[in-house]
Amino acid sequence: MTDIAVAIVDAETPGNVGTIARSMKNFGLEELLLVDPPALPRESEAYGFAGQAREDILPNARELRFDELAENYHTIGCTAITNEDGSQHVRYPFQTPRELAETLETVSADTAIVFGRERVGLTNDEIARLDQVCSIPANEEYPVLNLGQAATIVLYELRTLTVRETQLPDPTHDRASQPEIEGLHDQFATFLDAVGHPEEKQAKTMRLFRRLLGRAHPTGREATTLRGLLREASRRMRE
Amino acid sequence: MTDIAVAIVDAETPGNVGTIARSMKNFGLEELLLVDPPALPRESEAYGFAGQAREDILPNARELRFDELAENYHTIGCTAITNEDGSQHVRYPFQTPRELAETLETVSADTAIVFGRERVGLTNDEIARLDQVCSIPANEEYPVLNLGQAATIVLYELRTLTVRETQLPDPTHDRASQPEIEGLHDQFATFLDAVGHPEEKQAKTMRLFRRLLGRAHPTGREATTLRGLLREASRRMRE
Repeated sequence: MTDIAVAIVDAETPGNVGTIARSMKNFGLEELLLVDPPALPRESEAYGFAGQAREDILPNARELRFDELAENYHTIGCTAITNEDGSQHVRYPFQTPRELAETLETVSADTAIVFGRERVGLTNDEIARLDQVCSIPANEEYPVLNLGQAATIVLYELRTLTVRETQLPDPTHDRASQPEIEGLHDQFATFLDAVGHPEEKQAKTMRLFRRLLGRAHPTGREATTLRGLLREASRRMRE
Repeated sequence: MTDIAVAIVDAETPGNVGTIARSMKNFGLEELLLVDPPALPRESEAYGFAGQAREDILPNARELRFDELAENYHTIGCTAITNEDGSQHVRYPFQTPRELAETLETVSADTAIVFGRERVGLTNDEIARLDQVCSIPANEEYPVLNLGQAATIVLYELRTLTVRETQLPDPTHDRASQPEIEGLHDQFATFLDAVGHPEEKQAKTMRLFRRLLGRAHPTGREATTLRGLLREASRRMRE
């Protein structure tokens, strides 16, 4: 797992710092760097919004100057506003958060994702000093996200680099095996007989059912339950 | 583009409703449904946090009962907590937001993404009535996201269905053409000669430079600028 730091430059509202700290913890990041932060007392919204990050990430946040940040880290500046083309290089070329996750896979330098002010983001002078530019694709009519939301999306996309284990169980282990699925199809054929479905229509209806299950990828429990119901229904209809 | 609604069930804090409304506007969604919402007066944080969504999405939000929601929409319940396996079906099988975007591509029914309360999310009884389950992969040690952050990530992943045009220019049109890149490599060879780089090392150094540019995908402007600099340096060294 890569260590990636998050830097916030000149944030105005403590709440956004707390929100970002919480998202960091949700996605396995630990190092929070603050340039010109607002006061962050224990009773501020920073701690109110930080969730469990109030125990570690937030109190361990380190204040530093922008110069120190730019000089000591491989830096990625995040902005909603890019240059239109390669005629200017301040905000161009940029990468989307997903592309960023791919390019950072091979980087082992100390890396910091840099977010700017709530209203105006990072200035051109600041971005010019950073190594890469990242921009979230959004609706062209209103592409400017709230600071905390933007950071959350970038950290979410970086999770492949920072999260060792997610809370989610492996979804593949519980899919029904192919024999279980085929057993269900066999039982469905028996059911069609029992329900008196016209013989000439049976193949077509079997295909319909096969396509439906084919898209749904049933779990073992689903396949077993449906098979049992069809068996019992067929038995009762035959009595 | 698909119309997808967002439903928030029993939110406690107006600020979260506003944050979600803003994210909706960032990612091209319009229809906000509220089950048992808090009061949302104009002077509340709902409007303070909504950005430009304060003009339309928030005032146009529609209040409805949970029953109406479940009965009239194809519903996707979002939760951080899934069942472990297929032995229970309340919170299983689930899809990640990215998988959800793929499965919704072919759905033309009225669809609503459903988010629950800040602290406890959606209850089992509620989720049992919804059609699909969505869960964001996060750090297993702390997978519970803030409500506004969770909604933002899901809407971000659905953008392929809801955003017609992003604010980002097409990054491919500005890559240097292959002849421009090859021209730069030719100029680099001339430069190596001029700088007195040992002949037996030139092929290896050319390869190094080719690999570097191969990874960086230079823009036309970058290739032209570098080529010009190398040409001028070679000329000066030869004088």
